[in-house]
Amino acid sequence: MKKVLPRNTVARLSQYRRLLEKYRYLHEPFIFSHDLARMLDLKPVNVRHDLMLLGVSGDRRRGYSVSALLEKIGENIDCLGQGVVLIGMGRLGMSLIDYINNSNTTMTIVAAFDIDPEKVGKEFDGVPCLGIDKMTEFIQKRKLYTAILTVPNDSTTDILPFLRDAGIRGVLNYTSSHLVLPDKVIVKNVDATSYLEEIAYFIK
Amino acid sequence: MKKVLPRNTVARLSQYRRLLEKYRYLHEPFIFSHDLARMLDLKPVNVRHDLMLLGVSGDRRRGYSVSALLEKIGENIDCLGQGVVLIGMGRLGMSLIDYINNSNTTMTIVAAFDIDPEKVGKEFDGVPCLGIDKMTEFIQKRKLYTAILTVPNDSTTDILPFLRDAGIRGVLNYTSSHLVLPDKVIVKNVDATSYLEEIAYFIK
Repeated sequence: MKKVLPRNTVARLSQYRRLLEKYRYLHEPFIFSHDLARMLDLKPVNVRHDLMLLGVSGDRRRGYSVSALLEKIGENIDCLGQGVVLIGMGRLGMSLIDYINNSNTTMTIVAAFDIDPEKVGKEFDGVPCLGIDKMTEFIQKRKLYTAILTVPNDSTTDILPFLRDAGIRGVLNYTSSHLVLPDKVIVKNVDATSYLEEIAYFIK
Repeated sequence: MKKVLPRNTVARLSQYRRLLEKYRYLHEPFIFSHDLARMLDLKPVNVRHDLMLLGVSGDRRRGYSVSALLEKIGENIDCLGQGVVLIGMGRLGMSLIDYINNSNTTMTIVAAFDIDPEKVGKEFDGVPCLGIDKMTEFIQKRKLYTAILTVPNDSTTDILPFLRDAGIRGVLNYTSSHLVLPDKVIVKNVDATSYLEEIAYFIK
């Protein structure tokens, strides 16, 4: 039984991995926690704490072994059943299939759903696009738990009952709508507008 | 001279606004801080603290006036020069133009840049697409400071010198590359893969 890590730690571990993957094929690469912090614009104290929770120990002179870090991060955050469904096969949806299914992660988009008859029944980058009416059955049969939501804002309300019926437990939400879902469902909102406002504030 | 708010507060204020905009046309709408926290999956103590920093006071019986909150948020986080450039006019870039330029924000994508001769010289949703070679001059002439980066990962290194030359101070980075830019440049990384790994970890 794995220990449960704090949410911010998990988010950062995933970031460390993305960065460290780039160094793994160097000859015996090592990295210091403060360099990791600097490159990812994080507080060094948080990085040290995360690595302590992982249970890896660094070498005072050389820092942490990149391959040992990658192995420990994988052991801690990878889990079974990392198939994901995409709901909304528009431009954003297609760009996410391209990005996620070609990136260095164990997560994969296994199917997409849309209402557009032009898209339903076709494949994109090997990912089939099915009708929304097939969603609940597909998700339950394949024992999937995570959905990416990239539908237009005004379609969000229509989609929520399907997510509930299918037993979806985690949603990566690219709409600007607030999703009303059972409390136990984990929702992560990605809002480009908020990110831009945050950046603009600090460059004044 | 405005006081400088903490980075997390600014990010949340922007989220509050996105949510509150939906209530503003109701008759005299009020909201409690704990409802705001619940709807956005935030800690109530953080929300109360943010509202305190804004300098708005709530009514014990009815909560906070939505229109007063919106006005104060705007006063605090909106700034001049909120034109943004988009670098990389692919599917993701086009979906961001659609999303940001039609959303309730003062930020606007004013131009896009690409190397594809099929795209350069054309417009998308009223946003002109120019060649990368025109970027530095355009950005400096228009006094823009924020860029959204949606180029393929392997083009990132080629783009960085243009960002530096143009004096870009804030980047919303959709590539999975680590951007090496001067320290004073604010970078916000948006990585769908990390978000998915975070969600997957907690739905185990």
